Amino acid sequence: MTMTSKKPGHENDSQLTVNKLQKSIQEMFGHKDSQRGVDGTFMWFMEEVGELAGALRSDNREELAGEFADVLAWLVTLANLTGIDLEQAVAKKYCKGCPRCMAEVCECQISAKP
Amino acid sequence: MTMTSKKPGHENDSQLTVNKLQKSIQEMFGHKDSQRGVDGTFMWFMEEVGELAGALRSDNREELAGEFADVLAWLVTLANLTGIDLEQAVAKKYCKGCPRCMAEVCECQISAKP
Repeated sequence: MTMTSKKPGHENDSQLTVNKLQKSIQEMFGHKDSQRGVDGTFMWFMEEVGELAGALRSDNREELAGEFADVLAWLVTLANLTGIDLEQAVAKKYCKGCPRCMAEVCECQISAKP
Repeated sequence: MTMTSKKPGHENDSQLTVNKLQKSIQEMFGHKDSQRGVDGTFMWFMEEVGELAGALRSDNREELAGEFADVLAWLVTLANLTGIDLEQAVAKKYCKGCPRCMAEVCECQISAKP
């Protein structure tokens, strides 16, 4: 899997599919995740969510990017453990317009979910 | 953006890149997210995290998939609001082996992070 970049001259943008990411995380950590189980993994996930909250208050962009990556990686791990196809799940709910108003540019009230 | 499926006969698997998802969420919700700001959006994100926790205890697979999608969508929204390229962030940290031991199949102790 190649690292992507938005810098000019890099033509490999946008190659990491959610599926590829999920499979990569499975190959890398699946043997350990299955030992931790869902509950234990959720604890790690929450720790990363807390770190993301902290990074959102900081000016360190690199740290912030890293915390976003960590939360996504642990979310993917939870999906692996529960056998959820994350790409299929998000494509089904969010890639045909807003899941509530169905518009391509959401027209729901600001207070409404999502 | 097309909906993906793992069912036999569907050949459009694995087409949703993290970048495409981030751009799609930006187009759909960006105008509302900017009004909410990071703090308000983080509250919505946490609500979805709580719902995911509940769904992890349920036997409803469709609900579980939906909650995973919601958490991912709100994480992407937070990335949009803070100008983080989520694909680049996760590719940089997790797509060259374990960020700690650097192995393609993580060799870190089970108690170690990640």
